[in-house]
Amino acid sequence: MFQINDNYQKLPGSYLFSTIGKKVAAFSEAHPDKSIIRLGIGDVTQPLAPAIIEAMHKAVDEMADAKTFRGYAPDLGYEFLRKAISDNDYKARGCDIEADEIFVSDGAKSDSGNIQEIFAQDNRIAVCDPVYPVYVDSNVMAGRTGTYDAATGMWSNVIYMPCTRENNFVPEFPKETPDMIYLCLPNNPTGTTITKAQLQEWVDYANKVGAVIIYDGAYEAYITEDNVAHSIYECEGAKTCAIELKSFSKNAGFTGVRLGYTVVPKELKCGDVSLHGMWARRHGTKFNGAPYIIQRAGEAVYSDAGKAQLKEQVAYYMKNAATIKSGLQEAGFEVYGGVNAPYIWLKTPEKMTSWEFFDYLLEKANVVGTPGSGFGPSGEGYFRLTAFGSYENTVAALERIKAL
Amino acid sequence: MFQINDNYQKLPGSYLFSTIGKKVAAFSEAHPDKSIIRLGIGDVTQPLAPAIIEAMHKAVDEMADAKTFRGYAPDLGYEFLRKAISDNDYKARGCDIEADEIFVSDGAKSDSGNIQEIFAQDNRIAVCDPVYPVYVDSNVMAGRTGTYDAATGMWSNVIYMPCTRENNFVPEFPKETPDMIYLCLPNNPTGTTITKAQLQEWVDYANKVGAVIIYDGAYEAYITEDNVAHSIYECEGAKTCAIELKSFSKNAGFTGVRLGYTVVPKELKCGDVSLHGMWARRHGTKFNGAPYIIQRAGEAVYSDAGKAQLKEQVAYYMKNAATIKSGLQEAGFEVYGGVNAPYIWLKTPEKMTSWEFFDYLLEKANVVGTPGSGFGPSGEGYFRLTAFGSYENTVAALERIKAL
Repeated sequence: MFQINDNYQKLPGSYLFSTIGKKVAAFSEAHPDKSIIRLGIGDVTQPLAPAIIEAMHKAVDEMADAKTFRGYAPDLGYEFLRKAISDNDYKARGCDIEADEIFVSDGAKSDSGNIQEIFAQDNRIAVCDPVYPVYVDSNVMAGRTGTYDAATGMWSNVIYMPCTRENNFVPEFPKETPDMIYLCLPNNPTGTTITKAQLQEWVDYANKVGAVIIYDGAYEAYITEDNVAHSIYECEGAKTCAIELKSFSKNAGFTGVRLGYTVVPKELKCGDVSLHGMWARRHGTKFNGAPYIIQRAGEAVYSDAGKAQLKEQVAYYMKNAATIKSGLQEAGFEVYGGVNAPYIWLKTPEKMTSWEFFDYLLEKANVVGTPGSGFGPSGEGYFRLTAFGSYENTVAALERIKAL
Repeated sequence: MFQINDNYQKLPGSYLFSTIGKKVAAFSEAHPDKSIIRLGIGDVTQPLAPAIIEAMHKAVDEMADAKTFRGYAPDLGYEFLRKAISDNDYKARGCDIEADEIFVSDGAKSDSGNIQEIFAQDNRIAVCDPVYPVYVDSNVMAGRTGTYDAATGMWSNVIYMPCTRENNFVPEFPKETPDMIYLCLPNNPTGTTITKAQLQEWVDYANKVGAVIIYDGAYEAYITEDNVAHSIYECEGAKTCAIELKSFSKNAGFTGVRLGYTVVPKELKCGDVSLHGMWARRHGTKFNGAPYIIQRAGEAVYSDAGKAQLKEQVAYYMKNAATIKSGLQEAGFEVYGGVNAPYIWLKTPEKMTSWEFFDYLLEKANVVGTPGSGFGPSGEGYFRLTAFGSYENTVAALERIKAL
């Protein structure tokens, strides 16, 4: 008789955003007259930039003609896109990352879930707490996390690095030595980040203890401060210890378009074994390339027109972030993030739990946010609002919150 | 110090089609004057059907307007596509598969590589031999296959079910009981299939021994004989033992568009645990939905115009299949497949190995095919040609082969 992967049974409850979705649906059904504003999930609302739309129409037309039709893409991505990424995201910043070190994918969520596969099962992971749930969940499925303690919300074999107001949201080197360190910077959900000098310390630490850093740079486009690194490869020595994941979802509005990439430098090795070769093998065996049309959309992100249009789009969302931040501060909330990231992280008032505040905000202001505890035990007592709504909705939501 | 997943080190050599690509590139460089005809990889060459192109342009335009813009898709697929699949591929054939049992993905290669994740590591797999290499390779990466014997090309913990001319390419129930049985029908690479009555015997066997069948129906659109099932769910009892994988690559030319789906019936359980719930969790954690534009393209496959256009496209390729089959027979080859599948499987002449015949055909006829041994040990002494080229190239290739 076949047996299942028992690790799945260890996962508590359902995915955070499913629970939120159900709660909102129930409220909406009970109060059909209320207009709900969603500042919960990190989903964008602005349409795709004209340069991207144009590139996709052109690519669709190419698929309509046998002379320009494209079948299977190269597993690792089309050269035109890998080169644009290498030139713009790396070489222009002084990072020596070649096109063939870039693996194009259907999005950073897939990559951040799948990357753990190339590591040994008894590797020990460290995560910032709170953080994007996929890192831990995908390692639970792989049997790497030990047992779950429902009382603390913690896994016995995961090293948690609390990021709270007490340490200014800067993760500290853990007491126990991890093998794999997940860093999402700027961080989801806290919207906070660390300086390039602080990141350099993490790179030095990883090289010293022999850990690999899985660096999620999904929110890089929102960085506004000069002393923050746009890529971990700006730090010396990162190519021997770090894998970088990047998304087009937030910088170009591709949440429904699906495109991302992962950098695995050729210098990153375990003994003689190149992780670059391993990830290439994984990609070649269990993935068949991102759609041609979508890769052309990605290329347009790096065109002059695309860059200009997306700069405006990011500015639009960051105006929302500033609106949320100042509005919450006016309303007396303690607020973090929103400067280098499209997320605002607030301390819940009057010792409310994250879910209590979720219910309170939904019922009293009809505004949906995300409970901080959904991102890890140290997120308890915090709450996330996102800047990805429309400006009008954002302003309206803040008016409602201020009126509470 | 982090460690790697050692199972990757067990994988012999590179992926079959990479090796072929390198050999062809080397030949091409040495003989720049020769015009090479590629009937090797199963990649389509006909442009996308007009109904699909139209649907994609429309979807692209929707993404350009905030009012119709779509962000994150539902993880498991848009309802409009899941319903079209349920209605057309299942209910129209009398199979009671609901829309919510269908999981839309970025292609059957991803699903066929990832599906093993929800099963226990000590499950034993059975595969037809020869077969699509992803089934075995993805299980090697998961540590499920034991050790590799380079002399036989076999893994110690894989149950091989030889499909050769001796058994008319019909897999026999293995002596040892498997937990997971991979069936690709019509089969890649042999282009052969089994009758619905024979498939029913496999369903009965799986239910009896408690095995799960992972049924890859990628070539279903090419079935021409009435006694062949288009879905395993045409067989009684399949919903308690079978997962079905489907691709849009071959029936609609989506190799570069990327769309597929997997059916996990709610009745399929291991004890109390629903595999449907497990696959939903996997999809929700490590995947973020197929692109909206691509899902609209998939929907167009089921429109009246789409169906009519794709019927012609499949007929075009099957005319190639008939051309290859009759041409090879005229040239004195022993030939199989090509009736319910776009693949022709030939016995190599004069006891040549598969790779010897590959080199012979490349050098003497400048035609690229695929060595049968690349698909498993029982593929040795066979060779695959595909019907996915243009008609003109197919005719020209056969003229060259007949002239040898």
